[in-house]
Amino acid sequence: MPQEYEQNQEPRPVEPTVAPASVSDALRVPVSSPVSLASYAADARPVGPREKSAGVAATAALAPRLGELQERLYAASTAGDPRRLLLVLQGMDTSGKGGTVKHVIGLFNPSGCRIRAFKAPTEEERAHSFLWRIAKALPEAGEIGIFDRSHYEDVLIGRVRGLAAPEEIERRYDHINNFEQSLTESGVTVVKVFLHISHDRQKRRLLERLDNPQKHWKFAPGDIEDRALWPAYQEAYESALERCSSPAAPWYLVPADRKWYRNWAVSNLLLEHLEGLDPQYPKADFDVAECRRRLLESP
Amino acid sequence: MPQEYEQNQEPRPVEPTVAPASVSDALRVPVSSPVSLASYAADARPVGPREKSAGVAATAALAPRLGELQERLYAASTAGDPRRLLLVLQGMDTSGKGGTVKHVIGLFNPSGCRIRAFKAPTEEERAHSFLWRIAKALPEAGEIGIFDRSHYEDVLIGRVRGLAAPEEIERRYDHINNFEQSLTESGVTVVKVFLHISHDRQKRRLLERLDNPQKHWKFAPGDIEDRALWPAYQEAYESALERCSSPAAPWYLVPADRKWYRNWAVSNLLLEHLEGLDPQYPKADFDVAECRRRLLESP
Repeated sequence: MPQEYEQNQEPRPVEPTVAPASVSDALRVPVSSPVSLASYAADARPVGPREKSAGVAATAALAPRLGELQERLYAASTAGDPRRLLLVLQGMDTSGKGGTVKHVIGLFNPSGCRIRAFKAPTEEERAHSFLWRIAKALPEAGEIGIFDRSHYEDVLIGRVRGLAAPEEIERRYDHINNFEQSLTESGVTVVKVFLHISHDRQKRRLLERLDNPQKHWKFAPGDIEDRALWPAYQEAYESALERCSSPAAPWYLVPADRKWYRNWAVSNLLLEHLEGLDPQYPKADFDVAECRRRLLESP
Repeated sequence: MPQEYEQNQEPRPVEPTVAPASVSDALRVPVSSPVSLASYAADARPVGPREKSAGVAATAALAPRLGELQERLYAASTAGDPRRLLLVLQGMDTSGKGGTVKHVIGLFNPSGCRIRAFKAPTEEERAHSFLWRIAKALPEAGEIGIFDRSHYEDVLIGRVRGLAAPEEIERRYDHINNFEQSLTESGVTVVKVFLHISHDRQKRRLLERLDNPQKHWKFAPGDIEDRALWPAYQEAYESALERCSSPAAPWYLVPADRKWYRNWAVSNLLLEHLEGLDPQYPKADFDVAECRRRLLESP
């Protein structure tokens, strides 16, 4: 467990005086280490603001920087820069995948975002390798891709519900690692985020959906059955985080019991990765002065 | 020319005292009437706020209503409502198609928006009917689709640059009308917006792109050649507006010399069409009380 990570039962009494090197460093799941989700408090704030008002303001204040970096990423692609970013969102029901898209991706220019929510595979999708539909939904150069669920479902619900044989599930971890390695080699920065909520918080959020007729459409009785499988899902997530947090594409664990903290953390993860890419506006491949003269001479 | 439409040379001295029935009514291009673009001032404000500050504030204030209507549209689709909306954006270079997506579509939840920018067709696309790539990009039920350029390019640049024979261009108007008719019959509300800018304003915006190295990527020398074809393009637009402003899918003409007015107008067109659809949250198709009991009994 990362040292800066607080426990539920040990509330940190004061603001941290030394900030970690980065949000990414603070939230990255260590590579090749066992993962015990029980050791991560879902209401923790291992880095960043402690109070909601400060967190909400800090997230909103990122919009101009995110927008500029996104524009530079897109602009660079028009001159041949192959780079792009892919945000993978995973988490239990009610962990806030949809809310993250709304509030965090909502900070970007929608024209450069390619969003795909993966539901139960269609008959056509099931007739292919589990990575087939994933590959088709990848972002183009210059874009920010967002997966609401992903290929990880095939080692999560696939494992918990026994939708594939155990040997097949085993092979999938390797297929995922190879696939993500190939993505990074072709210019995709893969940012995988596990939205970590507590069992209690899920109950509260499911109740909210039941108690508000405007949220009934978000609920299905199957959600209660899935909840009964909570321990098996947590184990499946632990395996996915352990086996697929690679140097090329690490997992980030975002405590998601607090919605404002989740939004702050994911926004900053995206910011840091875009800053790392540092995309540049391309130089003009035409004679600017000549074009200017021709334009001024035109009627 | 609609009566409430002001002329460039006749600035309206006072605020209109009687608001038109709707923004849609004020901006709709009359069906089966000749269209003369010269009679529409690109800096007009035929309805709505006259001042930028009021317009910007009014547009931002729409966000909650737009968001709720969008959520209701999506929620309804989960219970089988086939309806969806398609915004088609057309206009000359620098008319603000991209800016409209950024500022107006940016008011919505990105997860329910399906955005497609159509560029010069690929070899594969050219091997099909001109509507092939359009059909593939349509929104799903519950979504808001946005086309930045569209099938209209095939009667605009296609006509001006002679990319197809005149007889073929002629046939395309009918194909477009039939296609859009079939869309509306299958639950698609088609909102076609022509962003109308003046020849002068285009020159100014092209110059801005040349004078700012961060905007060079948005410029191509071909833009100057297209500008030389301005009269031919205006004629092609007039034909498209005349022949394809149908009762099922009328065109809306939005004066776009003022960016803030363009954003205000398109936001309100979307609002009125979504209000016209009046989508409803679906009723639960499960026993709410029973689910509530089971959930509370779960650990």
